[in-house]
Amino acid sequence: MEPKTFFRLIFLIVTAGFIISFTSTNFPHAPSSTTGLLDCTDSSSSPLCASRNFLFNKQKPSFSKKDPKPKPKNHDHLSDTPTHPLDPLTVMEFNKVRSLLSSHALFSSGAPHAFHSIVLEEPEKNLVRAWEKGNPLPPRKASVIARVGSDTHMLTVDLSSGRVDIVDSPVRVSGYPLMTLEEMNEVTFAPFQSADVNRTIVSRGVDLTDVCCFPISSGWYGKKEENKRVIKSQCFSSQGTANFYMRPIEGLTILLDLDTKQVIEIVDTGPTIPIPGSTNTEYRFKNLGTPDKTRGLNPISIEQPRGPSFVIEDNHLVKWANWEFHLKPDPRAGVVLSQVRVHDPDTQETREVMYQGFVSELFVPYMDPSDAWYFKTYMDAGEYGFGLTAMPLVPLNDCPRNAAYMDAVFTAADGTPFVRENMVCIFERYAGDIGWRHSESPISGLPIKEVRPKVTLVVRMAASVGNYDYIIDYEFQTDGLIKAKVGLSGILMVKGTSYQNKNQVHKEKDGNEEELHGTLLSENIIGVIHDHYVTFYLDLDVDGPDNSFLKVNLKRQMTEPGESPRTSYIKAVKNIVKTEKDAQIKLSLYDPSEFHVVNSAKTTRVGNPTGYKIVPRATAASLLDHDDPPQKRGAFTNNQIWVTPYNKSEKWAGGLFTYQSHGDDTLAVWSDRDRDIENKDIVVWYTLGFHHVPCQEDFPIMPTVSSSFDLKPANFFERNPILRAAPNFEHDLPVCEAKSVSA
Amino acid sequence: MEPKTFFRLIFLIVTAGFIISFTSTNFPHAPSSTTGLLDCTDSSSSPLCASRNFLFNKQKPSFSKKDPKPKPKNHDHLSDTPTHPLDPLTVMEFNKVRSLLSSHALFSSGAPHAFHSIVLEEPEKNLVRAWEKGNPLPPRKASVIARVGSDTHMLTVDLSSGRVDIVDSPVRVSGYPLMTLEEMNEVTFAPFQSADVNRTIVSRGVDLTDVCCFPISSGWYGKKEENKRVIKSQCFSSQGTANFYMRPIEGLTILLDLDTKQVIEIVDTGPTIPIPGSTNTEYRFKNLGTPDKTRGLNPISIEQPRGPSFVIEDNHLVKWANWEFHLKPDPRAGVVLSQVRVHDPDTQETREVMYQGFVSELFVPYMDPSDAWYFKTYMDAGEYGFGLTAMPLVPLNDCPRNAAYMDAVFTAADGTPFVRENMVCIFERYAGDIGWRHSESPISGLPIKEVRPKVTLVVRMAASVGNYDYIIDYEFQTDGLIKAKVGLSGILMVKGTSYQNKNQVHKEKDGNEEELHGTLLSENIIGVIHDHYVTFYLDLDVDGPDNSFLKVNLKRQMTEPGESPRTSYIKAVKNIVKTEKDAQIKLSLYDPSEFHVVNSAKTTRVGNPTGYKIVPRATAASLLDHDDPPQKRGAFTNNQIWVTPYNKSEKWAGGLFTYQSHGDDTLAVWSDRDRDIENKDIVVWYTLGFHHVPCQEDFPIMPTVSSSFDLKPANFFERNPILRAAPNFEHDLPVCEAKSVSA
Repeated sequence: MEPKTFFRLIFLIVTAGFIISFTSTNFPHAPSSTTGLLDCTDSSSSPLCASRNFLFNKQKPSFSKKDPKPKPKNHDHLSDTPTHPLDPLTVMEFNKVRSLLSSHALFSSGAPHAFHSIVLEEPEKNLVRAWEKGNPLPPRKASVIARVGSDTHMLTVDLSSGRVDIVDSPVRVSGYPLMTLEEMNEVTFAPFQSADVNRTIVSRGVDLTDVCCFPISSGWYGKKEENKRVIKSQCFSSQGTANFYMRPIEGLTILLDLDTKQVIEIVDTGPTIPIPGSTNTEYRFKNLGTPDKTRGLNPISIEQPRGPSFVIEDNHLVKWANWEFHLKPDPRAGVVLSQVRVHDPDTQETREVMYQGFVSELFVPYMDPSDAWYFKTYMDAGEYGFGLTAMPLVPLNDCPRNAAYMDAVFTAADGTPFVRENMVCIFERYAGDIGWRHSESPISGLPIKEVRPKVTLVVRMAASVGNYDYIIDYEFQTDGLIKAKVGLSGILMVKGTSYQNKNQVHKEKDGNEEELHGTLLSENIIGVIHDHYVTFYLDLDVDGPDNSFLKVNLKRQMTEPGESPRTSYIKAVKNIVKTEKDAQIKLSLYDPSEFHVVNSAKTTRVGNPTGYKIVPRATAASLLDHDDPPQKRGAFTNNQIWVTPYNKSEKWAGGLFTYQSHGDDTLAVWSDRDRDIENKDIVVWYTLGFHHVPCQEDFPIMPTVSSSFDLKPANFFERNPILRAAPNFEHDLPVCEAKSVSA
Repeated sequence: MEPKTFFRLIFLIVTAGFIISFTSTNFPHAPSSTTGLLDCTDSSSSPLCASRNFLFNKQKPSFSKKDPKPKPKNHDHLSDTPTHPLDPLTVMEFNKVRSLLSSHALFSSGAPHAFHSIVLEEPEKNLVRAWEKGNPLPPRKASVIARVGSDTHMLTVDLSSGRVDIVDSPVRVSGYPLMTLEEMNEVTFAPFQSADVNRTIVSRGVDLTDVCCFPISSGWYGKKEENKRVIKSQCFSSQGTANFYMRPIEGLTILLDLDTKQVIEIVDTGPTIPIPGSTNTEYRFKNLGTPDKTRGLNPISIEQPRGPSFVIEDNHLVKWANWEFHLKPDPRAGVVLSQVRVHDPDTQETREVMYQGFVSELFVPYMDPSDAWYFKTYMDAGEYGFGLTAMPLVPLNDCPRNAAYMDAVFTAADGTPFVRENMVCIFERYAGDIGWRHSESPISGLPIKEVRPKVTLVVRMAASVGNYDYIIDYEFQTDGLIKAKVGLSGILMVKGTSYQNKNQVHKEKDGNEEELHGTLLSENIIGVIHDHYVTFYLDLDVDGPDNSFLKVNLKRQMTEPGESPRTSYIKAVKNIVKTEKDAQIKLSLYDPSEFHVVNSAKTTRVGNPTGYKIVPRATAASLLDHDDPPQKRGAFTNNQIWVTPYNKSEKWAGGLFTYQSHGDDTLAVWSDRDRDIENKDIVVWYTLGFHHVPCQEDFPIMPTVSSSFDLKPANFFERNPILRAAPNFEHDLPVCEAKSVSA
């Protein structure tokens, strides 16, 4: 090593050490202000304020002063009080929990500790269902998952009695709790503690001040991931671009101890692979210069000059058209819908549809078995937190102008609450679609043309789990249908390669091309093939909790000779599914079924059991070997549909402790117990999947791809519940003007 | 028979006879006005004006005076002249064709004749592709299908030379041309010519003045449908409701000669089945009384105060954002998109994507093999005309306020042109969706939040093929994606039953319930299970006509022992499909593929062939026996995807002469020739399917159910083509006010 390089390294190591010591005093136990709320007014104080990265302090916010500003909030959350049994913990409650925990023996010893999850311990379902507005709230409790040293503990804090109960301490299962935001952030700079890391980076021709490292959950494959919380870090060059994801230092993988943040191992399999260039990778509006004005679009907007038609009562209870439901942000699930009920226009009753629905887990395996890629098999909810990574929505762009926003209050690793502003938006949507229509045709010649426009209510969040952005929409239709939609955007996880053109790719001896595990997207960049699975927890309670799962199998029936000029027809064969294993459903185009959740105790006037059906739409199934370690952990994707009896402890499809888990506490394991599910309180699990073979259009940022599934009333109402909906009339619609061209 | 009943029948027969003679002079050869255009000012003159049914002359239009009125047209079509080789025939051209035909020997003899189709004979594809604005148009020709007596003839009329050429006369194939609107209309009253029909109706307790009969294409099952054009008619009671479809005179089937309109056979298998009541069947706004005001919705609208961003040049050329395409109504396909091209922001070229796309055929088999139902296996495009049955769209309800409308000019059975106003609408849509987004998360803490709203262009039509309404949307995205969407609404085809409640349904000896072939929707009404298949013709020309079909099969690849901690991954196996049979694709969730149309002669900068992929979404496959007569005729639904070499004569998946065809001229037959499709001008056929097990919510009119598929660029662009799109800014958006509450 030349003396110059050596001195440079020394300098960098010292610098990195300084940064670590600076940040370790600032990040993990962010000081709280006098309000008991994390102070984000100085945006440098914590990554939870999500505004700054120490390596990027040269960056300015990307929007100009012309940016839309979020509307002022009704309140600052400091004086929030819960009014519904399912309301999330408030700032005051979080502070009380923190105070109670601080005097508990586990945390008062001075041993390093962190709170990985503090959320409302939801009251028993029967208490919540029985509760009515005006009643006192069931006892408020917090459910706490903490790490002290190298042990995990579960506790419950009773907010009225002040009692702290240990639920499990230390926890003895294969997995660990989801990471704290502080940990994820620390891992972005922890690698620089290691002179070897720095030397390797420099040897790859990247300036240390340009490096950005990224925490990658390591999964579980055996020895390396046993009995120790570990994480992998991979690094990128941000030189010349904010889109550092497109400039991987390919092959460099750093294994760290997630408790101590010490580097355990450095592997560099890519010294000969160049860092892809920064050309064409920029995506920020202000840096792109003139927008493409080819046949530019005139302004267009969803307008409601009389305001939206929904109300949000007591911060969390959304009422719109015939729907009402409780809505809350959750650090792990993103958003949780509870007590979803719909008004029946015939009976004037408000009827139960779903007790709770949310994203339970995600599974995102990449399809490259090589050293720097095999472990990329993310479980974004249980490892990173789908709510923790849901960033403030951008008004006018993430949600239309008529949207309302809901903040989240989550906690830092030291238990201090912080506000994630505008985490959820709620808006009414008119997309020009048709609710129902009928014209009489020239055949009858009747003068009938009846059409009703379709207006819906959308609840939206967008999680940015590192490079990827997941947009989750729950859309409520007045005809009783609920659509759950997942949109994928953001930035690909790409692989560096020495190839600049497909014509350089090696031919194998058999004449086949070398396996690239993806698509050459640009010079030296391969978009690696991967899947996305989003598993939804759907505790449907159709007219009450006791429901059954009815499979309506459509099968070809041949006619008897002489019975008909037809030789075949489709017959619907209905069967109530008795036990869990028979409700492990793989969809098949040529063996189709409908999947109903019915209440056998309640029938319509003509005798059909009331029901809702799960309507799968476009999806993908995991093709991985069931014995492959990631598929064992992601075994909840082995079927598209599962049905389990309600069990308060079975919420997270990949297990409560997903991180590095061995797959011993998944939905697949629970379902294999084959419990009785007939006429029981049942939970349906649906997995929405995507195969993603990247294409050049995904570079440098992906146009949104989305898919969805529906929950649809099926003999729930006596008849079309929007029969009496009114059409649009010109005199009802707004009068709009363009704003002046200036500005 | 009692004397009273006998005299009543005599009266009815005389009345029916009178009606027939009245209408037969008025309908089939509607007199043309001095303009050469069918005169619809007196709405009683023709069913083509679609405003009146003689049995319903007591009906008033369903909308009040407050109704929105279509905007005034720019022109009355009388002086339209074609400006593009694919422009449909104009009023003047139709009149010239009619005049030329009238002096042709086939039609001047005085023998009864009817023109079943008069449309533009499109110029050869290479001529159209070579044509540029300013060039003279290729010779204008009309393609004519006529019936004279009991023979079908095909002719070509050259509009410049005035020459009429016989293409095939008489046509000797198994099928017949699509019905004329006049025929369909005549069949609604022709049954009353028969005293036996009238007697049977009266014996079922229905007053003849309340009866509405409906023409049902008879399919082909053998002897009864050989060598004679036949149709079946079934009747309903309209007493107390405009929704007569809900009041079937179950089991009564009348077979008619479609040429002579004579009754051939009457079968009544349902004398013991009551006519379902009219209660709850009404759906017209003005008849329903007070709308359901539960938490009524505030007005909501898509607003563009500066107007839409698209232009329609020369009546048919639509230009919007990065797209341009030719759009025309067609009596059989509904709408036809041609020469679809997209602007490439990198090269500034306008590049070819699709030469032509349209709905080629529909197949709608019902799943009841009994006498009154087995034959219901509609092919709506080839039997009824998907354009002929597309009714005027209702502004503000079928399409949002910012929509523009396009009229169709079709011809009556005597060749007279008529205008179908507002048959197509075109509008820009902003639905609150996200084009692309990325926020940096708390992990990196970078201050990046970039989001682009998604604005699209929709082309819409709605065909009312009797009871059902099909909404067809072609949606263009700025990212290069084209979405084809089919919405199903309208009214179910239901079956009368004596059951009023499910608990009355007979149990068979084996304990199973009697097969109802559907769902009891209301007292005495069964919604019969059926399928819908919509087959799209997609002549993709990616950067020119010579393309190949690339199948990218995703399959599990096991790793070698010791290769990786992973045991499996997904590998993309790419193969160019050589011949048609290998492109007969059945989709499978567990054997997934991507389906690309690529231009091997043109690659991106890094060497990927430019391409578009067909992205199937939710769909259904026909489960009928391949030897079942309807499935033989609908054999084009045996696969979801087919690829054929371009052949001008292969446009209609069920054959040019679909009506009563034997299935000997379908896409399945063409494809089985197994022609070469590599590096050829190829056509992709995609079938979108629905299984429909009705539920009570579909009564008395169905909330829209929809599904779609996408054509998506795949390495067509060098990178994300909307990278430089601008976000929404508050200062660009409109200022809107509510209109006064009065009106």
